[in-house]
Amino acid sequence: MSLVITSSLLSDLHCSQCGSVHDALIRQTLSNCCQAPLLCTYSLDRSVLQKADLVTRSKSLWRYEELLPVIQPENQISLGEGFTPLLTLNRLASNHGFKRLTLKDEGLNPTGSFKARGLCMAISKAKENGEVACIIPTAGNAGVAMAAYCARAGLDAVVVMPRHTPEAFKEECIGYGAQLILVDGLINDCAVKVQELMQQGSYFDVSTLKEPYRLEGKKTMGYEIAEQLDWQLPDVIMYPTGGGTGLIGIWKAFHEMKALGWLAQEQKLPRMVAVQAENCAPVVDTYLGKQTNSKQYIGKPTLANGLAVPRPIGEPLMLNVLRESGGTALAVSEDDMLEGVSELARYEGIFAAPEGGAIWAATKKLLHQGWLQPDEHVLLLNTGSGQKYLDNIKGKWYR
Amino acid sequence: MSLVITSSLLSDLHCSQCGSVHDALIRQTLSNCCQAPLLCTYSLDRSVLQKADLVTRSKSLWRYEELLPVIQPENQISLGEGFTPLLTLNRLASNHGFKRLTLKDEGLNPTGSFKARGLCMAISKAKENGEVACIIPTAGNAGVAMAAYCARAGLDAVVVMPRHTPEAFKEECIGYGAQLILVDGLINDCAVKVQELMQQGSYFDVSTLKEPYRLEGKKTMGYEIAEQLDWQLPDVIMYPTGGGTGLIGIWKAFHEMKALGWLAQEQKLPRMVAVQAENCAPVVDTYLGKQTNSKQYIGKPTLANGLAVPRPIGEPLMLNVLRESGGTALAVSEDDMLEGVSELARYEGIFAAPEGGAIWAATKKLLHQGWLQPDEHVLLLNTGSGQKYLDNIKGKWYR
Ligand SMILES: Cc1ncc(COP(=O)(O)O)c(C=O)c1O
Ligand SMILES: Cc1ncc(COP(=O)(O)O)c(C=O)c1O
Ligand SMILES: [Zn+2]
Ligand SMILES: [Zn+2]
Repeated sequence: MSLVITSSLLSDLHCSQCGSVHDALIRQTLSNCCQAPLLCTYSLDRSVLQKADLVTRSKSLWRYEELLPVIQPENQISLGEGFTPLLTLNRLASNHGFKRLTLKDEGLNPTGSFKARGLCMAISKAKENGEVACIIPTAGNAGVAMAAYCARAGLDAVVVMPRHTPEAFKEECIGYGAQLILVDGLINDCAVKVQELMQQGSYFDVSTLKEPYRLEGKKTMGYEIAEQLDWQLPDVIMYPTGGGTGLIGIWKAFHEMKALGWLAQEQKLPRMVAVQAENCAPVVDTYLGKQTNSKQYIGKPTLANGLAVPRPIGEPLMLNVLRESGGTALAVSEDDMLEGVSELARYEGIFAAPEGGAIWAATKKLLHQGWLQPDEHVLLLNTGSGQKYLDNIKGKWYR
Repeated sequence: MSLVITSSLLSDLHCSQCGSVHDALIRQTLSNCCQAPLLCTYSLDRSVLQKADLVTRSKSLWRYEELLPVIQPENQISLGEGFTPLLTLNRLASNHGFKRLTLKDEGLNPTGSFKARGLCMAISKAKENGEVACIIPTAGNAGVAMAAYCARAGLDAVVVMPRHTPEAFKEECIGYGAQLILVDGLINDCAVKVQELMQQGSYFDVSTLKEPYRLEGKKTMGYEIAEQLDWQLPDVIMYPTGGGTGLIGIWKAFHEMKALGWLAQEQKLPRMVAVQAENCAPVVDTYLGKQTNSKQYIGKPTLANGLAVPRPIGEPLMLNVLRESGGTALAVSEDDMLEGVSELARYEGIFAAPEGGAIWAATKKLLHQGWLQPDEHVLLLNTGSGQKYLDNIKGKWYR
C-alpha cells in the first residue's frame, strides 16, 4: 500500500504487554502476540515540532495532527471536537478552601462528551482503512459519538447499548441513522452481543482499546491541559474512570511531550486519580487489593452510565498510571455524585454529567481525608454534559 | 465613577433611532429619547488592533475583548463561550448541488446555544454595574443561559418562560438555582409578567435589546465568521430569526471590521436571510408587505421555540439589515424544519435545534426558487443543539 505521508509522525504500533511491533498501515485490533491493546508509536524528534508552532493551529484536537494517527488530511472527520475550555472554579474553591481548582469542560464537545475525541479518531482511521460499517458496545456516550462521526463519514453504524440507558442517548443514535440494539445488562453484556453480531456481518469493532486509535483521540486532553496551562501541569487530575482510555491517554500524552521536549524530563507529572461509582468500582477494588483483578467483577448500574464498566480490558494499564503517578482510586455514592452535579450547576453554572459530579464529590472527600492539600492545583475533568441524563436525574440534581 | 479602563474600546452608547449619545458607565435600558435600543460605540482606530493580534488569543469570544463592553477583566464571566467550529457540509452540498455549504455550530456553546454569547455579555456587564439580581422573559435558551451565567457570577436569577416549553429548559434553569416562573402564552406574555415582577422587586431586566450588551455578545459571531474564513466572507448567511439580535449583531460586526480596516471598505457583505417558522413569522410578513409592522402580530407556538417571538422590538433594525444586505425573509413549516434536523443529523452528524433545521430547509427552498445559486458560498448559522428539544421532537426528527 502506498500512501502520501502527510504530517502524521505515526511510525508503528506496539503491543502494550510485550512491546512487539505491529504494522500501522493495516487494520489492527488487539495485538496478535498477547491479545492486548496496541499503542501508537510516533517518531518524536525534538526538532520536528515546537510548542510555538501550535499558536496558529485550529481550535480543535487536530492542532496536534502530527501526533495523531490519521495520514491523509481528507480522512480527518471533524465536528469541531477538542480544545475545550479550561475554567477556574473560584466560587467552589473559596467555599471549600481550595487555592486553585480548574475544570476542563468536555461537555462542550460535539455530542456532549469527551467520547467525541476518541470516536472522531477511530472513525477517521476506520475511513482511512477502508471500513464501511462500524459497531460498538457502549454505556451511552461513546455510541452517540460513534453514530455522529459515522454519519459524517458516510459509514454504517451499529450501536449496542444497555436497555436501561436514558432515552436521549438512544434517540440521538437513531437520529444519526445508526442501527440501535438494546441489551439487558451492562456494557460487558453489550460486548457479548457485539461478538455475536460480528459473526453475522462485516463490521469493524471500535470497542474501547480493541482498536488503537480511540486512545489517541483521548490523549489530546493531556496535550490541551499542558498547553492551556502554559506548560505548568496541575498537581492532581481527577478523572471519572470507566474503560480508562482517558486516564491512559493523558498519561501517554505527558510522556510524548517529554520526548518532544515540550515538558522537561524532570517535570513532575500530576497525580492521577481514578474516580468510580460505588455501584461499579472494579478499578478501585483492585487498586485497594480487594481483588487480584476485575475479571470476575459484577457491577450494578449507576446514574453515571459511563462508569458502569465492570471488567475493563485496560485495567493493567490504568493501575500502572495510578501507581506511576502516585495517584489513587476512590468511589462515590449515587447521592454524592448528584450533590456534585448540583453544586457545579449552582455555584459555577456548569451542568455536568453525573460522572463530572462524581469527581467533584471525590475531590471534596480527598481534601477531608488529607490526601489533597488546600494549596494544590487540582484539575477536574468533567467528561460530559448532564443534558442526556435528565430522564434519570430529573428533580434529583438540585437541592 | 472612576474606573481603570483596560482593553475595551467602548466609548459610549447611542440611540438606534435618533443617534443621541448615552453614558456607557451607568446602568442603561432603552434610550430615554426614543425608547429605542441603545447600541455600543467603540473608538475604532485602525492602528489600535490588527487582525494579526488575534492569533494568540483565547479560544472564546473574549479574543475580541477590545471590541466588547466589559471594562474590568475580572468581570468577564466566562464558561468558554464562542469561537465555535465552522464545519463544511460536504455530503449535503453534493446531495443537493451546492458548491460550498458551511455551518457554524453554535450548539457547542455553554448551555447548548448561541444565547450563551449574549447572556455572557449581559451578565458580565450587570456584574460590572453592580446589579445583584437579573430577570428575563425567554422562549427557552436565553433563560437557561442567563441562569448559568448568573450562577457563575453569583447573581440571583428569575426566568419567565412559556409553560409549553420542553421540560429540559425548565429543569436546567432550576438546576442553576434560578427562580422559574411559567406563563401561559409566548415570550411577549412573559415580558408582561416581567414588567409586573419588576414593580415588586429590584431586578435588572435583560430582555432582548432592552439592555445594550446582549447584542455585543451576539455580534461576535460576525467577527468569528470573518476570521474563521480568513476574511473572505460568504455570499449568504442563513439566520433563524426570533428577537433578531444575531442578525443585527452580525451586521454591526461587519461594519466595525470595516472601520477597523479588517475588511476592505469595498468588501461586498453577505446577503442576510431571516428564516422564521410559519407558525410565527412576523418579520417575514412585514418584509413581504403583508403588514406595516408586527406590533399587532399574533403568533402560535412552534417546535423552534426561539422563533416564537411575535412582536420583536428590534424589527426596524432587522428590516434594515435585510434591505441593506440585499437579503430576504422566508418561513418554513414545522414538517420542513423537522426534515431539516433529520438531514443534518443523518448526513453530517450534527444534531441541530429545530431552529437549525429550519435554516437548512430554507436553504433548499431558496435554491429551488433560484434565489440562491449553486455556486454561492452559503453559511448556515445553527444556533443551538437539539438536545433540550427532545421532549417535543422525540420520534419525529428522524425518517
Ligand atoms: C461522561 C463519561 N465519563 C467518563 C467515562 C469513562 O471514560 P473512560 O472510558 O475514558 O474511562 C465515560 C464512558 O462512557 C463517559 O461517558
Ligand atoms: C436556538 C435559537 N435560535 C434562534 C433564536 C432566535 O434568535 P434571535 O433572538 O437572535 O433572533 C433563538 C432565540 O431564542 C434560539 O433559542
Ligand atoms: Zn504482545
Ligand atoms: Zn433617540
